[in-house]
Amino acid sequence: MKHSLDALAVREMMPGFRGRFIHGENVTLAYWNIDRGALLPAHAHPHEQVVNVLDGVFELVVDEIPHVLRKGDVFTIPGNAPHSGRALTSCWILDVFCPIREDYRAA
Amino acid sequence: MKHSLDALAVREMMPGFRGRFIHGENVTLAYWNIDRGALLPAHAHPHEQVVNVLDGVFELVVDEIPHVLRKGDVFTIPGNAPHSGRALTSCWILDVFCPIREDYRAA
Repeated sequence: MKHSLDALAVREMMPGFRGRFIHGENVTLAYWNIDRGALLPAHAHPHEQVVNVLDGVFELVVDEIPHVLRKGDVFTIPGNAPHSGRALTSCWILDVFCPIREDYRAA
Repeated sequence: MKHSLDALAVREMMPGFRGRFIHGENVTLAYWNIDRGALLPAHAHPHEQVVNVLDGVFELVVDEIPHVLRKGDVFTIPGNAPHSGRALTSCWILDVFCPIREDYRAA
C-alpha cells in the first residue's frame, strides 16, 4: 500500500512534535517534524525503537547517557530502556517501532 | 547504540544496490544507494517490508501492480508478497524489515 507523507494527517503528540504515522503488520513508522528546543520527557515502552535522524540535531538520552545525533545517525533503543531528548535544532526524524504502537493509531 | 551511516560497511548486494544495514531486536533497517536503471529482480520473503523513498524515483511492482514512488512516498509490502523494481533515477531508500533479515547480517 502506497502512502504519501504529504497526504497523511499530522498530529501534534507532544508540544513541538508533529507526527505522521504508518502502521504495517508488526512495525509502526513515525515521521516527526520537531521544533528547535522541543523536549521529549523521560519515558519507556516495551517496543524497540530505531531513531533515524534525517535532518537536524537531536540530543537523545538513553539509560541516562546523552548522545548527540546528527543527520545520518541512527540509534537503536532496546525495548523498555528509559529515554528522553531535546531538539538542538529543528529536526526531521523517522522512528521505527516494533511491535506496533497501538497508542499511535488514529482515534 | 549509536550508528553513523558514514561509518557502516557498504555492501553491494545486487548490481547497483549498495546497502548499509542496522539490526535491532526484531527489525532490520537497510539504507540503499541505488544507481539509476538498477533492477530489483522479482522475489518474495516472509518479512514485511516498508520502503521509504528518501530521494529519487523508484518504480516498485507489488503483486504485478506498478507504483511510481518519489521522495516522501512510503510503501508497505506485506510478508510473502512478490515484488520487483527499477530505479528511474539514482535513489536513496530506507527499507524496514520485520523480522530481522538474517541474510543481511555481515558474513
